[in-house]
Amino acid sequence: MSLVTLVEYAGAPAEVRAVYDDIMKTRGVDWVGNFWKGLANDPAQLRRTWEHVKQVMAPGALDPLVKEMVYIAVSATNGCEYCTYSHTASARKQGMSDAMLMELMAVVGLANHTNRVVNGLRIDVDERFKP
Amino acid sequence: MSLVTLVEYAGAPAEVRAVYDDIMKTRGVDWVGNFWKGLANDPAQLRRTWEHVKQVMAPGALDPLVKEMVYIAVSATNGCEYCTYSHTASARKQGMSDAMLMELMAVVGLANHTNRVVNGLRIDVDERFKP
Amino acid sequence: MSLVTLVEYAGAPAEVRAVYDDIMKTRGVDWVGNFWKGLANDPAQLRRTWEHVKQVMAPGALDPLVKEMVYIAVSATNGCEYCTYSHTASARKQGMSDAMLMELMAVVGLANHTNRVVNGLRIDVDERFKP
Amino acid sequence: MSLVTLVEYAGAPAEVRAVYDDIMKTRGVDWVGNFWKGLANDPAQLRRTWEHVKQVMAPGALDPLVKEMVYIAVSATNGCEYCTYSHTASARKQGMSDAMLMELMAVVGLANHTNRVVNGLRIDVDERFKP
Amino acid sequence: MSLVTLVEYAGAPAEVRAVYDDIMKTRGVDWVGNFWKGLANDPAQLRRTWEHVKQVMAPGALDPLVKEMVYIAVSATNGCEYCTYSHTASARKQGMSDAMLMELMAVVGLANHTNRVVNGLRIDVDERFKP
Amino acid sequence: MSLVTLVEYAGAPAEVRAVYDDIMKTRGVDWVGNFWKGLANDPAQLRRTWEHVKQVMAPGALDPLVKEMVYIAVSATNGCEYCTYSHTASARKQGMSDAMLMELMAVVGLANHTNRVVNGLRIDVDERFKP
Repeated sequence: MSLVTLVEYAGAPAEVRAVYDDIMKTRGVDWVGNFWKGLANDPAQLRRTWEHVKQVMAPGALDPLVKEMVYIAVSATNGCEYCTYSHTASARKQGMSDAMLMELMAVVGLANHTNRVVNGLRIDVDERFKP
Repeated sequence: MSLVTLVEYAGAPAEVRAVYDDIMKTRGVDWVGNFWKGLANDPAQLRRTWEHVKQVMAPGALDPLVKEMVYIAVSATNGCEYCTYSHTASARKQGMSDAMLMELMAVVGLANHTNRVVNGLRIDVDERFKP
Repeated sequence: MSLVTLVEYAGAPAEVRAVYDDIMKTRGVDWVGNFWKGLANDPAQLRRTWEHVKQVMAPGALDPLVKEMVYIAVSATNGCEYCTYSHTASARKQGMSDAMLMELMAVVGLANHTNRVVNGLRIDVDERFKP
Repeated sequence: MSLVTLVEYAGAPAEVRAVYDDIMKTRGVDWVGNFWKGLANDPAQLRRTWEHVKQVMAPGALDPLVKEMVYIAVSATNGCEYCTYSHTASARKQGMSDAMLMELMAVVGLANHTNRVVNGLRIDVDERFKP
Repeated sequence: MSLVTLVEYAGAPAEVRAVYDDIMKTRGVDWVGNFWKGLANDPAQLRRTWEHVKQVMAPGALDPLVKEMVYIAVSATNGCEYCTYSHTASARKQGMSDAMLMELMAVVGLANHTNRVVNGLRIDVDERFKP
Repeated sequence: MSLVTLVEYAGAPAEVRAVYDDIMKTRGVDWVGNFWKGLANDPAQLRRTWEHVKQVMAPGALDPLVKEMVYIAVSATNGCEYCTYSHTASARKQGMSDAMLMELMAVVGLANHTNRVVNGLRIDVDERFKP
């Protein structure tokens, strides 16, 4: 149960509707997720976060699907339930297969494993890794 | 300063040397990183971890460079210094440019941002995200 | 479903009741939260934790509401569901508005974002930041 | 040793200089920190992050010093060295005393403590905490 | 609701059944947990993870029950719901009492507390702690 | 470089000296670590934290060495440099061998691995794990 009211389109102020409209248009869908409805309690934060997402997740030096999988990797590492569901849905829409998801999880698991062993043993960084 | 002795090739037992040899051969280099030298204090763990890395980071449903970038994303999220240095070096060797690294960091930053806002507001997962 | 029995007042031993009584008196309420009922499985830990909370969250160099908001910031960062609900309820009782909660989340999101980018890029600490 | 070149003002392109100028003007100083010099490898990311920081850390529903302390709380929880140094310096400039810092750490320590005990015991959220 | 299909024994391919059989035989039970059923979407990952668990959690320099409690400590720190439930069940089967669980949580809470205070104050490591 | 002054015995107020004396007496050593010297900036916090450590780390339902190893497991998971060094030193003094440390790291690595895979796949908790 969300700690703030989820702002629905019907009752939203104009500045919130404008962001919702842009989200729906950019994504080619007729709905917005609860994350945006929660952020809408602070219209400036809603707009700022959406502009941020829109710019960062767009095609660039990295492929959008790679970006979605990186997002999933971070969300799994942080244990964020909402983000794992929403970005897995998004990645699947962009072509991520079950095999790709499983392989992604293998990398996420391995990285979390070695990160902690290295930290626990305080292994010195090899000089040759430094730029 | 590592909390365990780093086992150098010269003084390593045969089972450790065999793993070091395989690491060097697989990677086409003539040295092994300190991580492996630390793990070598437990030869079974060294072998198990190396086999794990070798299998998971090989080409599969995901591209090896994508895997390295996912590794960096997890390591940055966990704040693992050694892993960030070693996997950035590895990703660069496989073709990651500065532009790709910067864009990767933008996604990592954004995911960490929204993960925590969603958790803090306890936003309900939209039913349509569920499989 | 809690992994330990929640100890209710009616069936609690005297040393547990004494802590429950102090919690209720200090807070001016007639109930204690499930967190305390879980800790009551170890009466010494219950008392130690309560004394800790009572001292740390009292007015001091920082305002109690600021402390509650710091608690929420940490709990959102750690993804602790129980703590997010309980401390948001407590902060609201002390006057935190929706606008304050939203702004708090904006800071939490931003800090989590930059924390990870800085870690991922291994930015050197500026000498002038050191005391 | 940073994983990307730190972009100094002298050799920076115009769009980077424009952001550096705004940072220095807004803060009333004649230098910018290494964080910004690292982000400058991606001028769009530099601008986006700075605009984000500028808006979020400005006075609003919360006091700027409270925001800095929340930033420190998150950075300590995430173990971010750079952020802890830079935001402690900033908070001190805005009036945070040693007593305030110590008390902040007491809250951060306590929150991290109870977050994990609650998670480990899987304590059910009390219905009355839900909005 | 799991993001991948849980693979039941009846419909599983031979290589998955072989792992399920080994899990059941090793543990002396007639069922496998959902974790394994999820991993079975990638039979190689299922086998690799099971071999890993089987080797690491077996008796060695540390007692199996100690290992289970370490597993719980990490899972509570990471906030992993599934792992907390499954490893607490496993530790109880091996003799962990409520008193032991409560004391374990006290250590987990304390470690998380001091970890963050030390990080927030950036306390220099004493030379005498270094090996 | 610590963000607060480290309070040395010679210049410490009586209430701080009393805690330092108790630490040294309890541990049978003639020095106190930097962690305590940092906390001493807030004598009440110093006392509270020391009493907490003294009680929790004492023999009880769990063996003191097991507790030290749990402390290391949490510290490695959180990436706390100071705590990893100090508690590894302490555990070694109490008899932890290199083989035990390596095996501990294997468990820590594995737990961090599976924690994140389970979170990423959002595996449903088996009913039979619930108490």
